[in-house]
Amino acid sequence: RSGKMAKSTKLIDNEVFQAYATYTAIVLLKMMLMSLITAYFRITRKAFVNPEDTASFGKGDSAKKYLRTDPDVERVRRGHLNDLENIVPFVGIGLLYTLSGPELSSALLHFRIFAGARILHTFAYLIPLPQPGRGLSWAVGYAVTFSMAYRVLKTVLLL
Amino acid sequence: RSGKMAKSTKLIDNEVFQAYATYTAIVLLKMMLMSLITAYFRITRKAFVNPEDTASFGKGDSAKKYLRTDPDVERVRRGHLNDLENIVPFVGIGLLYTLSGPELSSALLHFRIFAGARILHTFAYLIPLPQPGRGLSWAVGYAVTFSMAYRVLKTVLLL
Amino acid sequence: RSGKMAKSTKLIDNEVFQAYATYTAIVLLKMMLMSLITAYFRITRKAFVNPEDTASFGKGDSAKKYLRTDPDVERVRRGHLNDLENIVPFVGIGLLYTLSGPELSSALLHFRIFAGARILHTFAYLIPLPQPGRGLSWAVGYAVTFSMAYRVLKTVLLL
Repeated sequence: RSGKMAKSTKLIDNEVFQAYATYTAIVLLKMMLMSLITAYFRITRKAFVNPEDTASFGKGDSAKKYLRTDPDVERVRRGHLNDLENIVPFVGIGLLYTLSGPELSSALLHFRIFAGARILHTFAYLIPLPQPGRGLSWAVGYAVTFSMAYRVLKTVLLL
Repeated sequence: RSGKMAKSTKLIDNEVFQAYATYTAIVLLKMMLMSLITAYFRITRKAFVNPEDTASFGKGDSAKKYLRTDPDVERVRRGHLNDLENIVPFVGIGLLYTLSGPELSSALLHFRIFAGARILHTFAYLIPLPQPGRGLSWAVGYAVTFSMAYRVLKTVLLL
Repeated sequence: RSGKMAKSTKLIDNEVFQAYATYTAIVLLKMMLMSLITAYFRITRKAFVNPEDTASFGKGDSAKKYLRTDPDVERVRRGHLNDLENIVPFVGIGLLYTLSGPELSSALLHFRIFAGARILHTFAYLIPLPQPGRGLSWAVGYAVTFSMAYRVLKTVLLL
């Protein structure tokens, strides 16, 4: 593999980039899964927010009662928003970090810990686990992104 | 054009990247448009959330009555959040997909269907269209992103 | 530095990319800071949303009273969401703009104004400053992103 890397100038042949692509795809797919979980709870709990979504339950008050918030739906939605707030910085800063030329072992360490922390965070939020389970898994992912940002700024700083 | 591509190693001279850049700019601009639509409904419906935003309507109770939620404003905000949840994965996974070297025709198919689905989704949400209009347009965009992620993971998987 | 650039085909050796990486890291770190400010207000105002977060305050009604919304917490959360809505397009369109080969001076102008506007926006939201302080800082960042998108589409348009 390293022979191929030495000749190619293509990003896709760079192993750090391959690792970045793998883990970015994984965490973005995990984030997308939250939409399906929200839909599942909206349908099983019959808790909708748009009037047109309850039209199949009949007209008038018989449908209106399904326009309500449900604690399980709201919990998944909070988990989804927390993903956006944390996975967006990972994807952006992670790409810059990848291009800054880190060692593969160091990059894999960052990517694996981040992905593991965010998957744990989702379980901690949805089960839910007692605190500080969710708090710690959030903090680990945050620290990994911060560590990558530190290397990026140390490498490229041009203000 | 292909002669130019053969010589250049610059991403910007690669046609798949040009297509990615075009459609990413389009869907991100479409997402940004949601801010203007929210502002339009906040001003025309006089429904604000920050006290400092109603100061021009006078002081005390005459201004306080405009600190309220409005169904049209909330509808646009839900559409905006749905854009974030779906366009962020498209931009991230789409870049990785672009770098994985797909055929131009295949890439254009993915990008065009995604952009079309998200534009339809916005119309379906704001008009609103009866279901399953909004649900289907959401599902099509979701499936396109999933298809690109599948190719990325098949090409680069390095765990 | 330009001698190095002429020989290298690596993105990281390109000065416009170095500027993009610097300002993208800065605005994403600024966005991540909103999580810490939210946590600070949740703890000092004792205003939580998940029952498991109030377990350390005791059981039953003594803990339940901390499951409430607080104006300061909600304000930070709105600022955080506004960051997501505006910084995501900057990061995505900014990368495409960087790869489109702009002059360094022109790129720095875009990046500096955007970062300055978003930092001002956060202060305007959290202090809060009277309007149109927050509105103007939002509009400046929006216009910068739009200007970059215009150059991207002018350079690469492939529909």
